[in-house]
Amino acid sequence: MGLFTRDIKTMNDLFLHQLQDIYYAEQQLVKALPKMADKSSDPELKQGFLSHLDETRGHVQRLEQVFQTIGSAVKAVDCPAIDGIIEEADEVTGEAAGKAVMDAALINAAQAAEHYEIARYGSLISWARQLGRSEVAGVLQKTLDEEKACDRKLTTLAEGRVNLRAVS
Amino acid sequence: MGLFTRDIKTMNDLFLHQLQDIYYAEQQLVKALPKMADKSSDPELKQGFLSHLDETRGHVQRLEQVFQTIGSAVKAVDCPAIDGIIEEADEVTGEAAGKAVMDAALINAAQAAEHYEIARYGSLISWARQLGRSEVAGVLQKTLDEEKACDRKLTTLAEGRVNLRAVS
Repeated sequence: MGLFTRDIKTMNDLFLHQLQDIYYAEQQLVKALPKMADKSSDPELKQGFLSHLDETRGHVQRLEQVFQTIGSAVKAVDCPAIDGIIEEADEVTGEAAGKAVMDAALINAAQAAEHYEIARYGSLISWARQLGRSEVAGVLQKTLDEEKACDRKLTTLAEGRVNLRAVS
Repeated sequence: MGLFTRDIKTMNDLFLHQLQDIYYAEQQLVKALPKMADKSSDPELKQGFLSHLDETRGHVQRLEQVFQTIGSAVKAVDCPAIDGIIEEADEVTGEAAGKAVMDAALINAAQAAEHYEIARYGSLISWARQLGRSEVAGVLQKTLDEEKACDRKLTTLAEGRVNLRAVS
């Protein structure tokens, strides 16, 4: 972005900028999720991270489809928010000793990333509808539904087993 | 945290670390919210940021109360996630031209921060219950309820008025 100009003049500009932001975020998560799966001990959690990795690759493809639909080049912009979330996940899981505490820390880290995406996709869908792009809103809604489902699964796994093991 | 030791050995350690993390995050939001209110044009949005600033000051006090209850010193640890979210908010709103597009960008930025807090408080409450600290869970639940209510208000404001103005 320019230092001396204001590049976000219209809602179309804001939509495109945040599309590029979440495109970067999804790509970083494609890199982070295999590492999180490696660090997991609980088999269901490990599998959950791998399944979500597949879904995340699909989210990247859906975003590429949206870029195409709106006639914009596929492009990522740096997203300090997801970088910070992943940096923090690395720090905390790097400090966690013991398998069960590590699993609890991994779930916590993953839920921060999920919630970041839930917030961003929520706005993108709302803006797409306002811009008369209901087909784009529909594509992004599929991803949002998967992010929310992933977040719920993580809560169920944490409260049903992982946290209990970590405390005992 | 140490570079050569693993400092998070128990769920109590993980709980304390994330309490220190959200304590830092709330303090950063106390600094960020007045700037967001200044940048807002919509009177309801401006007032919403100022009301949430009051709530956020209350969240800081509640966290200090929790530190006291669990017998730990009040302490903040760096939270790269909230730093990234605020950095990104500054970047995007620094680029936004036009009052209505700026308001839409501000709501988007605020919802990323709200969702970060929703994720963190959700885990803290679940861990507090598991650790037999139901009184602490109760205190943190009050804050979580306020964060969720703030997020819903922002969605209503965006979809009811701000996005519509920004597109027209």
